[in-house]
Amino acid sequence: MAFGEKGGLRVPPLGRRLRLGFVGGGKGGLVGEWHAAGARLSNHWDIVAGALSSNPDNAAASARDWVIGPDRSYDDWPTMITAEAARADGIEAVVICTPNWTHFEIAEGFLRAGIDVILDKPMAISTEQADALVSLQQETGVVLAMTYPYTHHPMVRQARHMIADGAIGKIRQVHVEYAQDWATAPEDPGFKGAAWRRDPVKVGRASATGDIGTHAYHLLHTVTGLDVAELRADFHVCGAPKAMEDTAFVSLKLSNGAPGLLWLTQAAAGNYCALRLRVFGEAGSIEWDQERPEYLRVNMLDEPERIIVRGNGAGMHPAAERLVHLPRGHGEALTDAWGNLYAELGLVIAARRSGKTLAEGQAEYTDAKGGAAGVRFVGRCADSHEAGGVWLKLT
Amino acid sequence: MAFGEKGGLRVPPLGRRLRLGFVGGGKGGLVGEWHAAGARLSNHWDIVAGALSSNPDNAAASARDWVIGPDRSYDDWPTMITAEAARADGIEAVVICTPNWTHFEIAEGFLRAGIDVILDKPMAISTEQADALVSLQQETGVVLAMTYPYTHHPMVRQARHMIADGAIGKIRQVHVEYAQDWATAPEDPGFKGAAWRRDPVKVGRASATGDIGTHAYHLLHTVTGLDVAELRADFHVCGAPKAMEDTAFVSLKLSNGAPGLLWLTQAAAGNYCALRLRVFGEAGSIEWDQERPEYLRVNMLDEPERIIVRGNGAGMHPAAERLVHLPRGHGEALTDAWGNLYAELGLVIAARRSGKTLAEGQAEYTDAKGGAAGVRFVGRCADSHEAGGVWLKLT
Amino acid sequence: MAFGEKGGLRVPPLGRRLRLGFVGGGKGGLVGEWHAAGARLSNHWDIVAGALSSNPDNAAASARDWVIGPDRSYDDWPTMITAEAARADGIEAVVICTPNWTHFEIAEGFLRAGIDVILDKPMAISTEQADALVSLQQETGVVLAMTYPYTHHPMVRQARHMIADGAIGKIRQVHVEYAQDWATAPEDPGFKGAAWRRDPVKVGRASATGDIGTHAYHLLHTVTGLDVAELRADFHVCGAPKAMEDTAFVSLKLSNGAPGLLWLTQAAAGNYCALRLRVFGEAGSIEWDQERPEYLRVNMLDEPERIIVRGNGAGMHPAAERLVHLPRGHGEALTDAWGNLYAELGLVIAARRSGKTLAEGQAEYTDAKGGAAGVRFVGRCADSHEAGGVWLKLT
Amino acid sequence: MAFGEKGGLRVPPLGRRLRLGFVGGGKGGLVGEWHAAGARLSNHWDIVAGALSSNPDNAAASARDWVIGPDRSYDDWPTMITAEAARADGIEAVVICTPNWTHFEIAEGFLRAGIDVILDKPMAISTEQADALVSLQQETGVVLAMTYPYTHHPMVRQARHMIADGAIGKIRQVHVEYAQDWATAPEDPGFKGAAWRRDPVKVGRASATGDIGTHAYHLLHTVTGLDVAELRADFHVCGAPKAMEDTAFVSLKLSNGAPGLLWLTQAAAGNYCALRLRVFGEAGSIEWDQERPEYLRVNMLDEPERIIVRGNGAGMHPAAERLVHLPRGHGEALTDAWGNLYAELGLVIAARRSGKTLAEGQAEYTDAKGGAAGVRFVGRCADSHEAGGVWLKLT
Repeated sequence: MAFGEKGGLRVPPLGRRLRLGFVGGGKGGLVGEWHAAGARLSNHWDIVAGALSSNPDNAAASARDWVIGPDRSYDDWPTMITAEAARADGIEAVVICTPNWTHFEIAEGFLRAGIDVILDKPMAISTEQADALVSLQQETGVVLAMTYPYTHHPMVRQARHMIADGAIGKIRQVHVEYAQDWATAPEDPGFKGAAWRRDPVKVGRASATGDIGTHAYHLLHTVTGLDVAELRADFHVCGAPKAMEDTAFVSLKLSNGAPGLLWLTQAAAGNYCALRLRVFGEAGSIEWDQERPEYLRVNMLDEPERIIVRGNGAGMHPAAERLVHLPRGHGEALTDAWGNLYAELGLVIAARRSGKTLAEGQAEYTDAKGGAAGVRFVGRCADSHEAGGVWLKLT
Repeated sequence: MAFGEKGGLRVPPLGRRLRLGFVGGGKGGLVGEWHAAGARLSNHWDIVAGALSSNPDNAAASARDWVIGPDRSYDDWPTMITAEAARADGIEAVVICTPNWTHFEIAEGFLRAGIDVILDKPMAISTEQADALVSLQQETGVVLAMTYPYTHHPMVRQARHMIADGAIGKIRQVHVEYAQDWATAPEDPGFKGAAWRRDPVKVGRASATGDIGTHAYHLLHTVTGLDVAELRADFHVCGAPKAMEDTAFVSLKLSNGAPGLLWLTQAAAGNYCALRLRVFGEAGSIEWDQERPEYLRVNMLDEPERIIVRGNGAGMHPAAERLVHLPRGHGEALTDAWGNLYAELGLVIAARRSGKTLAEGQAEYTDAKGGAAGVRFVGRCADSHEAGGVWLKLT
Repeated sequence: MAFGEKGGLRVPPLGRRLRLGFVGGGKGGLVGEWHAAGARLSNHWDIVAGALSSNPDNAAASARDWVIGPDRSYDDWPTMITAEAARADGIEAVVICTPNWTHFEIAEGFLRAGIDVILDKPMAISTEQADALVSLQQETGVVLAMTYPYTHHPMVRQARHMIADGAIGKIRQVHVEYAQDWATAPEDPGFKGAAWRRDPVKVGRASATGDIGTHAYHLLHTVTGLDVAELRADFHVCGAPKAMEDTAFVSLKLSNGAPGLLWLTQAAAGNYCALRLRVFGEAGSIEWDQERPEYLRVNMLDEPERIIVRGNGAGMHPAAERLVHLPRGHGEALTDAWGNLYAELGLVIAARRSGKTLAEGQAEYTDAKGGAAGVRFVGRCADSHEAGGVWLKLT
Repeated sequence: MAFGEKGGLRVPPLGRRLRLGFVGGGKGGLVGEWHAAGARLSNHWDIVAGALSSNPDNAAASARDWVIGPDRSYDDWPTMITAEAARADGIEAVVICTPNWTHFEIAEGFLRAGIDVILDKPMAISTEQADALVSLQQETGVVLAMTYPYTHHPMVRQARHMIADGAIGKIRQVHVEYAQDWATAPEDPGFKGAAWRRDPVKVGRASATGDIGTHAYHLLHTVTGLDVAELRADFHVCGAPKAMEDTAFVSLKLSNGAPGLLWLTQAAAGNYCALRLRVFGEAGSIEWDQERPEYLRVNMLDEPERIIVRGNGAGMHPAAERLVHLPRGHGEALTDAWGNLYAELGLVIAARRSGKTLAEGQAEYTDAKGGAAGVRFVGRCADSHEAGGVWLKLT
């Protein structure tokens, strides 16, 4: 089967799976298991090495759980780079899913070692760091891919391609929101990472905005194809008292002149992972809700509402059908999106390593520039807020 | 049955229905039929007189349709005042549902004649007019009631009283939106009034903001019991080109310090009467959607979501049960809310006219001050927008 | 405006409202208020007389609540017939909403007096009674109309006409259910009538089947245009112990050979008025749910799902648009359906009384034969159940 | 981490993954990829061998796609048994996902070879075959596990344990349906297996009933803990003409005396994988819908509706929390359920092979007797239908 052929998303093109390592992801953390699940499901990767925790006992125990041999479970990532780079069967890519403030130096280390990098968002905690990673990626030619899983949902891909094809005409306003509830009450929300997410030293100048605002911004940009030209942000603490914002209201002027609103919060009871996008064009609208990811609500003026359900045919775009694994109604959700992400990255990295070129549309992913754009968005939100909520150009 | 006793909302307390006249409401208009339906359904009113249109032929034909005798169908409202005031069986109250720019002088005329006034929103097209009507109402003692039907839905009343009773704790953020689609396409939307809604001479300094923004503001205020302390507004044209805004994004600082967002638009395909309120407190949240008015979504932290369905018992508040007419599941909707509005006003006006005093909670309605608050809100939105989107105090 | 012209459903064609009386409907009952609300809302009727209760005090008090003069509040229906028939301004039609076992004799009395009859379902408690009323109606020429309000919902009308026009092709299977919860617990459900609904002397050989099964059967028949050829019924008690069935499972063979299932219950917690119809054709399907009456779910094979929302245009059938009063999204529900029923009956009865003929489609209602069909359906269900669940021909 | 400890579902207890082979599952088939995805996601299995297709070219190509070495890709399953049984690193379990009529002999072969068997439903095409497999399993002590993935959804597990704990009291009626649309139109639905599903030689005496009716029966039984005592079935062809039923209506008498209805169809446009269960008890009800698998709708009499959303806490049962991988709102769906199935079977098979005993509740799965019960249910449905729809005891 050719690289990325429809129906072949889970076929590793080199006839073997690629060797993957992890930095971070150990027991007690949140997102490591999500990455690992995506990698396994994709059939493109074997997880063979890791520095899974800065705590050596946890690192070792976590490695056992993931069936990583003790010889390839490392106490720290510099050791891992040295050891893996020296092996004939060393890892071909690394997933970095450590706390934000460590992204920069770890990514830098692996890029310099020529190991492809799969980096959890946000890319870094400052625009300077992000720009430096973009430069380093360009210099080394190594893959630096960001993990924004929501844009690997088939129905997000569907929305993106419908809009690109002009289905709803020129975009006239956009509303995106990402609401959670875990920062409402003063009690510890019960996952490692809740604490550092509120520590400016560890996350930079914004908390929730970096954590979930980047997703909302990325989704808006990916689906509409528009960038944010200017923004104005107000940060708030709407949950229990804390040192950094848990909520932000951001007004947007998009690159085509249309206005937009982005609301993010971690203090809205009854919302868990409520990432919702509504795009209004001159001819119709498209809405998607991460908590009901199988459906796209499409309204063309003066027509009945259409619900496109993930599957093959019945309104699906070929670019979205590529990501479909189960028949319509046999639910796919976030784990499947992670699987798609790791499959698309499998194609991209296998192509680079084998000197092949992927054809247009065979794999979509977020590259270093996309990662830096997210960091810049967060930084400008902080700038605007600190200046009293003034309009600022994004770039 | 005592005034406003539970289950007796549709019982006219004087043993007879009150005599009601209309100014406006003739054929081709939009809201007259809604008012008339509410008045009929309530069982508190007989519609006996009217100056239903500024076009005499339409006025006469419309009167025939509503079974108003030709002797009490008037060509203009001043004549109507004179004639009705002179009759022993003259009208006891008048509904004014004419275009916005005429509200002030018509209301003034009826108030001075001692006829209770039921006035469609917005109260007037300027803060000066609104304040003058408040003064006149206080001076005359005549009832001046605004018609905000959404706050007469049982589940809105439920939300209001749950919040007042502290069900979700201190309010920490509020989101309200009112989205429609009729101003998206350049084609005439097909109802009389679409044109004047975009004419600054006729609606004042704001268009959609006065039309539907007042509803959103009123709903927010009524349900939360909070006022807007400061606001910042941006007006946009997101549908076909037009002289005035069809969309506004309004940031709010509420009177308890909580932030809020109010979005209103008439250019969002797929939205018809999408008035939605989400109130987030420190202990939980409450959401209501006008397009699914029978349900209140309540989320207390760390509990399963609760859906309270309109009816008796099963979580209903006594103050909301007063408005219930049909058993749970036997749907009530906007017509029923109009019926409640006209029943509550029937109680209020019957009480004034018979010298009775309603007990606390027997009837809730929006008075002159509430009407003026809506006009002030619209005016300050226009002020803020015109000043480039600056924060302004509401009062 | 001509009889039943689009947009004119609430215009009484004779230039005046018709005079309506009630037998039953007094305080403490369930459905009287629903009928009265529909009559008032329709603008076709003035409620001027009544024998509202078999209890004279209740009758008098109820008449006061409804603003019926004491001279036209009667202690019993025979007196009412005599008195009203003798008045020049006597009632032109009567609503009979008494317990089932009294329908026959009261309807007979009014029909013989030449007063048009509006009769709550089920028509009678035996097939013999029902057939006798059909004959009497034919003999007298007086209108005998049944009140099945659900088929006066615009979206039910929409479904009926789409199917008649062939939108989903030949019907291949039909599923209808009507579920409530009030008979689950042993406690009194708190409305007058709960008791007699379980008394075979008062309701005949079936309880829930007559009460709500008739609605389900009627809806199926009205929407599909198919009749039931054969049926097989099992009665059950699924709630608290009681003398008659609260649940029935009925298998159907429809007149075109398609199979169907009808489930009715009053012992299904979480269901209030859950009347749901699903019609599957060779080309697509149509679904409607009384608890969300504004929407029709339409699925054509290999197309995205379409949601038709009540309103004008956007997929609406002209025959359904006739019943539309509020713009799309401005909710209508059961009260509006009752209003439509009373408006359509207003047209029918005004036409008969003025010697006019309504054009095809100007008003749809259920006549005496339709009422008798419902009674026959209930009777055959009882026959089948009593015979151990055997297949029986309906006629 | 101990066997099956909470949060440890994806931890292989022997410190290594088990070796898994497949019979069936090659390209062009439907369910093989679903099994493989579950096995990979679970982290309990390495897929190392297969006889993936009866077509040798397809078998070889499919093995390459799955990264199975050419030396362990076999042309037929007898060769696979011989070769794998001879290897020190031979497979420890086999997945059989071939067409129904081949299940018996393949399962028999692997059981006799001492290789644990994971068998797609239905177990076999006759009760005789099924009973023979039960006996063989008992004789050999080898694991024979059926794959009913829906019962590995956390919210199905939640429903099962809530009901077992008495949350809704005694069960009084049960409704289950499984509706699809692919057999509606005469066109080929486009998946291999559509043809043999309608061939009595290959599927036995029932088609859709064996295909999806088994799932519905299994779900009902698993969640309620009740068995079917008696049933009465009618088979229908509601889609394009075909040799076997695409639809069945089955009336049930459950083991506690409660009635039930089971409807299955593959000819209901707009339904894709619409497996829905509604269980009504004397105190409340529970509903689950496979197309919205994250939610459980719970209605206790006289309380607001509760929606339990998959996650930790907020109403979740510990036995369901075991299956939770992502935080509330971060969607899990069918792939995750397959992952749970393969994780639970990983625990079961690792325990058997290491001589350990799983504690109560550490892993739930459907054993040989459960598989035979499904086959018996299908057979009795066919018996009843062929006898004209008579009541028959299930056993």
